[in-house]
Amino acid sequence: MEKHIVLLPGDGIGPEVTKAAKNVLQSVADRFQHTFTFESHDIGGVAIDNHETPLPEDTVEAARKADAIFLGAVGGPKWDQLPGHMRPEKGLLGIRKQLGLFANLRPVKAFQQLLHASPLKHEVVAASDLLIVRELTGGLYFGEPRERRNNGKAVVDTLAYERREIERIVEQAFQSAQVRRKQLTSVDKANVLESSRMWREVVEEKKEKYPDVRVEHMLVDAAAMKLVTNPSYFDVIVTENMFGDILSDEASVLTGSLGMLPSASLNETGVGLYEPVHGSAPDIAGEDKANPLASILSVAMMLKHSFGMEEEAEQVEAAVQEVLDEGYHTADIDLVGGTVVSGSELARRVVDQI
Amino acid sequence: MEKHIVLLPGDGIGPEVTKAAKNVLQSVADRFQHTFTFESHDIGGVAIDNHETPLPEDTVEAARKADAIFLGAVGGPKWDQLPGHMRPEKGLLGIRKQLGLFANLRPVKAFQQLLHASPLKHEVVAASDLLIVRELTGGLYFGEPRERRNNGKAVVDTLAYERREIERIVEQAFQSAQVRRKQLTSVDKANVLESSRMWREVVEEKKEKYPDVRVEHMLVDAAAMKLVTNPSYFDVIVTENMFGDILSDEASVLTGSLGMLPSASLNETGVGLYEPVHGSAPDIAGEDKANPLASILSVAMMLKHSFGMEEEAEQVEAAVQEVLDEGYHTADIDLVGGTVVSGSELARRVVDQI
Ligand SMILES: CC(C)[C@H](C(=O)O)[C@@H](O)C(=O)O
Ligand SMILES: CC(C)[C@H](C(=O)O)[C@@H](O)C(=O)O
Repeated sequence: MEKHIVLLPGDGIGPEVTKAAKNVLQSVADRFQHTFTFESHDIGGVAIDNHETPLPEDTVEAARKADAIFLGAVGGPKWDQLPGHMRPEKGLLGIRKQLGLFANLRPVKAFQQLLHASPLKHEVVAASDLLIVRELTGGLYFGEPRERRNNGKAVVDTLAYERREIERIVEQAFQSAQVRRKQLTSVDKANVLESSRMWREVVEEKKEKYPDVRVEHMLVDAAAMKLVTNPSYFDVIVTENMFGDILSDEASVLTGSLGMLPSASLNETGVGLYEPVHGSAPDIAGEDKANPLASILSVAMMLKHSFGMEEEAEQVEAAVQEVLDEGYHTADIDLVGGTVVSGSELARRVVDQI
Repeated sequence: MEKHIVLLPGDGIGPEVTKAAKNVLQSVADRFQHTFTFESHDIGGVAIDNHETPLPEDTVEAARKADAIFLGAVGGPKWDQLPGHMRPEKGLLGIRKQLGLFANLRPVKAFQQLLHASPLKHEVVAASDLLIVRELTGGLYFGEPRERRNNGKAVVDTLAYERREIERIVEQAFQSAQVRRKQLTSVDKANVLESSRMWREVVEEKKEKYPDVRVEHMLVDAAAMKLVTNPSYFDVIVTENMFGDILSDEASVLTGSLGMLPSASLNETGVGLYEPVHGSAPDIAGEDKANPLASILSVAMMLKHSFGMEEEAEQVEAAVQEVLDEGYHTADIDLVGGTVVSGSELARRVVDQI
């Protein structure tokens, strides 16, 4: 197959991990006789520096034409004092919205080798394997009005949804649950929010179409507790944008392997933006220390979700597991008896396995 | 001193733990020569049963005249299918709003005897001692509009604040920090929400008045992570109503002692509503199994925050610690080598210590 991939390296360690992702994609193309073409564009801080906007028009244009997008990371202290519309994360929020990337998939899985770095007791976290499906282009992030009022004496933000926006994310979550352990937890605050009551109705309606999936509703405060006390309880969680932001970050630290977590953000046509969950880590940028595995696992998600290449995706995941099994890792990870290597060396070892 | 206390036992185990709270208050009055008078009113499910509303007018009237209010718990499966305005938690939301109880104080402290029940590793959680100051009468909980639109095809909720509402909760948090370890973490989502940007401005403005307090801003997603990875990092956290709901419940399970956690909700005149953090636990209601210690520690908060009785409050806290040290506990808690007793027996032992 031929696929065209837009790379958005961004800031900090973004370019390093993007290079690793590209190398892995190239090795998959070689091994499985695909043709992947690449083009790079600016986003975030580097785009502010080069084009005076965190999201240049031609970045959006290129992304629209791509079969998939890979993003490294955005942000850093250099741009922290700029006004709101000139902040690197506006680039990220902008591309999500402009490409309609409404479904953010964030899997959290325990790697047995890394569990000792978890803040949780081994028996609490060991069996964890969950997926958070976060609505990404609506809710409290984008609702209007969001403004000062009454001469600056008051302020409002708005949590807004169209019913069909809730429907499509709920459908996505049911479909994700079907290819996993078939258990869906819909998280809301239906005892307080009208939007949550609509959310619950939509879930109740849609569940008729997915009789093989067990569904339950859980309040967001209860979910925040249960993620800590019993993370292995969950299979798929679906929730509103801001709830999803909080819960997915809470979930990301449970297994002790934040540097390992991938993510996918999909639109209605299956085009997706893939990025590691970790940030731009400006403190170690340029030192070839960054852990490329979250990016490489994001590539596996790309192969599966945007290209339908199941076998290729499994190959990439198996290669990562193999390299971990051999004890290789970057300095962010503490692996008993392992060997610390540079980020590029670790990526090369994954490529060799493919 | 003479103080008049309104008791709102509510549902499930609410009446049992309220009785324990009342007995402890009475023993404090005896020991320290105060006069505490009591009157009880309905709220929540029991109010729905008796008065067809979760918050009867005379409950509000009585609460308005009280020096302090104690609430047991509200809710239960019996009322779960009722329409929104007839749900037990509407009683709780209503009394918060009508009495202007804007400052919710939720301390989380590790009890060494109970740490083994924590989901976190001992070294991660052992030193934890934090206070969440949650805004309780504004934000996403109460903003208008909150409604269906466009023939049910859309929905909105609103996160609204007046600047002075942010100011008073931020002041409360600075004052709480001053009598603790003098470190304040203001939690927001300033990279997305306009209300969070105003929140940050207010904190920056107010900090001039409290030069002895160290202040930092943290994004809510980062705070959700750090509560799990390093809870002892925090002293006082101040945040918006919904963020506070999520983070304080997340925090409540860290130390393995949910049955031990008290809370206070204060208004501008210092009148407060005190309640245990745990719920109504309908499954064990009426069996004299409920742990009264969260309620008794809520009484300690009442003595301190509403009555200015520091010494009395410390006496109550010391009595709880003493009973734990002697190994007595209810069945919800698993204390190695301890003795399981009924809720009323445990409360009696605390009273004996006072
Ligand atoms: C950078 C920020 C705007 C973003 C978000 O809140 O969505 C990030 O936290 C994330 O989760 O991708
Ligand atoms: C019962 C519910 C409305 C309430 C809230 O969300 O405030 C509860 O979760 C709490 O934290 O006191």
